[in-house]
Amino acid sequence: MTAGKIICAGLGPGDPDLMSLRSYRAIQGARHVAYFRKAGRKGQARTLVADLLPAGVVEHAMEYPVTTEIPFSDPEYNRLLSEFYDQWAETLAEMAQTEEVVVLCEGDPFLYGSFMHLYTRLQGRCPVEVIPGITGMSGCWTASGQPITWGDDVLTVAMATLSEDELARRAADTDALVVMKIGRNLPKLRRALERAGRSEDAWLIERGTMPGETVQRLSEISGPVPYFSIVLIHGQGRRP
Amino acid sequence: MTAGKIICAGLGPGDPDLMSLRSYRAIQGARHVAYFRKAGRKGQARTLVADLLPAGVVEHAMEYPVTTEIPFSDPEYNRLLSEFYDQWAETLAEMAQTEEVVVLCEGDPFLYGSFMHLYTRLQGRCPVEVIPGITGMSGCWTASGQPITWGDDVLTVAMATLSEDELARRAADTDALVVMKIGRNLPKLRRALERAGRSEDAWLIERGTMPGETVQRLSEISGPVPYFSIVLIHGQGRRP
Ligand SMILES: C[S@@+](CC[C@H](N)C(=O)[O-])C[C@H]1O[C@@H](n2cnc3c(N)ncnc32)[C@H](O)[C@@H]1O
Ligand SMILES: C[S@@+](CC[C@H](N)C(=O)[O-])C[C@H]1O[C@@H](n2cnc3c(N)ncnc32)[C@H](O)[C@@H]1O
Repeated sequence: MTAGKIICAGLGPGDPDLMSLRSYRAIQGARHVAYFRKAGRKGQARTLVADLLPAGVVEHAMEYPVTTEIPFSDPEYNRLLSEFYDQWAETLAEMAQTEEVVVLCEGDPFLYGSFMHLYTRLQGRCPVEVIPGITGMSGCWTASGQPITWGDDVLTVAMATLSEDELARRAADTDALVVMKIGRNLPKLRRALERAGRSEDAWLIERGTMPGETVQRLSEISGPVPYFSIVLIHGQGRRP
Repeated sequence: MTAGKIICAGLGPGDPDLMSLRSYRAIQGARHVAYFRKAGRKGQARTLVADLLPAGVVEHAMEYPVTTEIPFSDPEYNRLLSEFYDQWAETLAEMAQTEEVVVLCEGDPFLYGSFMHLYTRLQGRCPVEVIPGITGMSGCWTASGQPITWGDDVLTVAMATLSEDELARRAADTDALVVMKIGRNLPKLRRALERAGRSEDAWLIERGTMPGETVQRLSEISGPVPYFSIVLIHGQGRRP
């Protein structure tokens, strides 16, 4: 029997005031926190809670063995990550025998979140509680100052890692669109939106609700974009 | 020049602890709150904040002139609602000359929210601040205990008010699916999911994160479902 548990706290889109009361309390009461980060970086999740962590909290930085050095189509990418998640699941399950550990997760943990890979591995091994969060996309469409969906608009959420053909097809066949994981996929995404006839409606939000937030038309952007970037097309549906 | 403003506070999916710190503070400091409700009902938004409203707060119940009595394809439906939003926009803009008014909104205000109809009407008339919230769908997929999207899964969000053909087409052409506004559209949605070959993967979440929450396979449900019901199909994408 375990006496502790794992609590995954959704942190919201960036601004610490957009965290839920439940996540806030979990973090303020934490004795152990864990978070993902790129090796050699502070980590966005950790940065976000800098002013909230209680004195004496024990920190566990879970450093990805690989991020963009190897393409994720390479089997080696998969093997390294899988091993990484296995090991951390083992460590967390062990800690949860006696301790409560709060795992920090950007946005909403169950929407394309890294914690999901630990979550599945922890099933049946210890209690896991997940606290939802405001998604990065909600933060971004709010920052854009325009509602994302009206009436019976269809909203499609897609990753810019999809093929150009697939992105073009999706963009042409939806009312509202959200695209994440932009990074080096931006030129491909641009071509796809062009083909779908939707480039003029597209907005790029960088660092939504974070310091340095920008809201621009995609057509006005040139050059690289930061990791925290989302492309949005707002729905234009029925409105009395 | 206005001295006040309108603050639309996203309340999250239902559980008051899932509200953001910013919405929580806005509500606790409010002198005026406004919220939508069906005539003769308490209103879900109002019920949710029952324990948070400060003493002496002035309440403004915005009662829909019509909800499901007239089909929304009837021009009269549109006219009545449009007039209703015009009038409340007028009233709120007036109040915002001198006062701060907090408008309570379920979930995230910019995702199919009623406040959007006031928001567009208030543009250029007074300052309006929107505080995002955890969406009802995030609350529901968290309650389901399964992540909604993995890897490069495509997520489609649709309303059950769409035609059966359209629902079937959308359900067949997506990895993950969220359907809202179920109510009397449930039999149609069921047929659509059947045609798409996806009924066995569908879950129905009633009152996600609220008292009386249920998580069931859609195939196990018979009979009517409450207003706060969502149908989900979880993505099964790439996972190391
Ligand atoms: C792996 S996904 C994780 C999503 C997260 N679980 C959520 O609910 O928002 C990371 C992607 O989310 C997007 N993103 C998240 N927060 C963002 C923000 N505040 N501003 C811009 N993009 C953001 C970026 O496109 C980024 O590549
Ligand atoms: C008009 S939409 C408003 C959505 C809201 N702005 C949001 O962000 O969740 C109302 C629909 O949301 C869904 N919904 C919202 N909260 C829910 C909850 N806690 N449980 C189940 N369904 C919910 C229902 O399908 C309902 O018909």
